[in-house]
Amino acid sequence: MLGKKAYYDISIIGAGNVGWHLATALEHAGHSVHEIYSQHPANAEALVGNLYQAEVLDSLDLIDSKANIFIIAVPDRIIPEILEKLFVPENSIVMHTSGTVPASIFEDTFDNYGVLYPLQTFSKHKAVDFKQIPLCIEANNKDSYKIIKSLSTTLSDHVEKIDSEARKHLHLAAVFACNFTNHLYKITEDYLEQRRIDSSLLFPLIEETTTKFMEIGPKAAQTGPARRSDITTMNAHLKLLADHPEMGKFYKLFSQSILDHY
Amino acid sequence: MLGKKAYYDISIIGAGNVGWHLATALEHAGHSVHEIYSQHPANAEALVGNLYQAEVLDSLDLIDSKANIFIIAVPDRIIPEILEKLFVPENSIVMHTSGTVPASIFEDTFDNYGVLYPLQTFSKHKAVDFKQIPLCIEANNKDSYKIIKSLSTTLSDHVEKIDSEARKHLHLAAVFACNFTNHLYKITEDYLEQRRIDSSLLFPLIEETTTKFMEIGPKAAQTGPARRSDITTMNAHLKLLADHPEMGKFYKLFSQSILDHY
Repeated sequence: MLGKKAYYDISIIGAGNVGWHLATALEHAGHSVHEIYSQHPANAEALVGNLYQAEVLDSLDLIDSKANIFIIAVPDRIIPEILEKLFVPENSIVMHTSGTVPASIFEDTFDNYGVLYPLQTFSKHKAVDFKQIPLCIEANNKDSYKIIKSLSTTLSDHVEKIDSEARKHLHLAAVFACNFTNHLYKITEDYLEQRRIDSSLLFPLIEETTTKFMEIGPKAAQTGPARRSDITTMNAHLKLLADHPEMGKFYKLFSQSILDHY
Repeated sequence: MLGKKAYYDISIIGAGNVGWHLATALEHAGHSVHEIYSQHPANAEALVGNLYQAEVLDSLDLIDSKANIFIIAVPDRIIPEILEKLFVPENSIVMHTSGTVPASIFEDTFDNYGVLYPLQTFSKHKAVDFKQIPLCIEANNKDSYKIIKSLSTTLSDHVEKIDSEARKHLHLAAVFACNFTNHLYKITEDYLEQRRIDSSLLFPLIEETTTKFMEIGPKAAQTGPARRSDITTMNAHLKLLADHPEMGKFYKLFSQSILDHY
C-alpha cells in the first residue's frame, strides 16, 4: 500500500478544464505530474507544454508508470471506457473528479480508489486560487482516504469528506448556483446590449447581490417587484418582454416562485 | 432657480430601503437632511433616529420647508398620491428614485424635476458603499440636471445620464441579475439544507462565478452539463428532482435555454 508522503507521483487522465487546472495546482504544491493522457492528444500536448516534466501518454497501459496516484478527469460518460483500458501499478490509488459518478464505479477494477471533486467552475484561460476551492473527497478504505486527504490538503484549505450521495446533491446545487446564475447574466447582458446600454452598469449590483446573500442569507436579502408583490411593475416588465418569449418565460417562472416562497 | 452648491438642503419622502440608505449617504456627504415623511410614521421615526438633525413630517404641505431638494423614494404605485399632496417652495427640484416611472410623471406638477435611480439592492440592515453605486440621473432642464448631477457626484463615483426609456430596461435587467439570481441561491440553499449539507460549501463557487463572468463575459464563462450537451448528467439531475417539481421546472427551462444559446 502506498504510504502517506509530502509529495506524490501522479498521472492525470484527461486534459479538459479540470485536468488542466488540477495538473498545474499539483505541480505548484510540489508534486510530480508524470503523465497526461487525453483522447484528444493535442489537448494533452498543450497541457504538458504548461507543466514542468510531464509526458504525453498514448496508451492507458500504465503498469510501468512512475506514478502511483492516477486522477481521472474526463467527462462522466467516458469514465467506463477509461476503466476498461486503464492498468496501473500494484498498490496505486485511482480517483476521479466527477460530481455525479459514485466512487463505487471503481469497485470491480481497483483495490484502492476514491474521489477528489473540486467544487468550482473551471475554464482553461481563467486562473483560479486552488487554495480556496472546496475539495470533496472520499475513498474506499482508511489508508486510501488518508492519502487522498493528505494530497488534497496540499492543494486546498477546504477539504471536506463528502460521500457519493451528498456529492451528487452538491453537484446539482452547483449547476443552479453557478451555471444557471451565469446564464441569467448572459441573457441579461444580451438584452442590454441589444439596446446599446452598457451592461457593466450592473456589476456593482451583481457583486452586492452575491456579498449580501453570503452575509445575511438569500431570504433576508431578497428585494424587487415579486418580493413586494408589486403587480404593476411585474406587468410593466412582462409588457417590455412581449418580444422576448424566452425571457418572458423566465420572468414568469421566477416571479411566481418568489411570490410562493415569501 | 436653485443654484449649484457644495451642500444641499434636502427632504426625503419615504423611509423604506432606498430612503433609508440615501438619507444616511446624503448626511455622510455633508448635506442637510431636514425632513423625512413616510406613510408609516414609525419608519420615519426610526430613520430620523439614525440621522443628525432631520424631523419627522406629518404633512406633505412643505411650502415653508428649509429644503429645496425633495427626493421621493416610495413604491412606484404610491408616487401619484404623493404628487397630489406635495407642495414645495418655489424653485425647488423634485425627483424620484424609481427604476420604472418616467420622469414625465412630474411634468404637470413641478417646473424643475428629475430622477436619481440608484442601481443597487438595498436592505435596511445591510450597509453598502454608496460611492460604488451607479446613480442613473436625468432632469427636465439643464439647470436641474446640473444640480442633480452635482448632488449625485457627492454621493457616488459612478453617475450616469440615463433617460427614462433606458432606465426601464436597466431596471428589468437588474431584476434578472439580482432578484432572480438571489432566488436561485435561495432554492439551492433550501435543497441542500433539506439534505443537511452545508450550503456555504458553494460560496467559493458562487464568488468565482461572479468574478469570472465580469472578467471574461458570461458566454466564455459558461460550463456545466447543458453547456457540454451532457444528456446523461441532465437526466440524472432531473431524476434527483423528481420530488421537486418547482426546481425541475427551473432545471428544464435553464438547460433548454443554455442548449439553445451555444
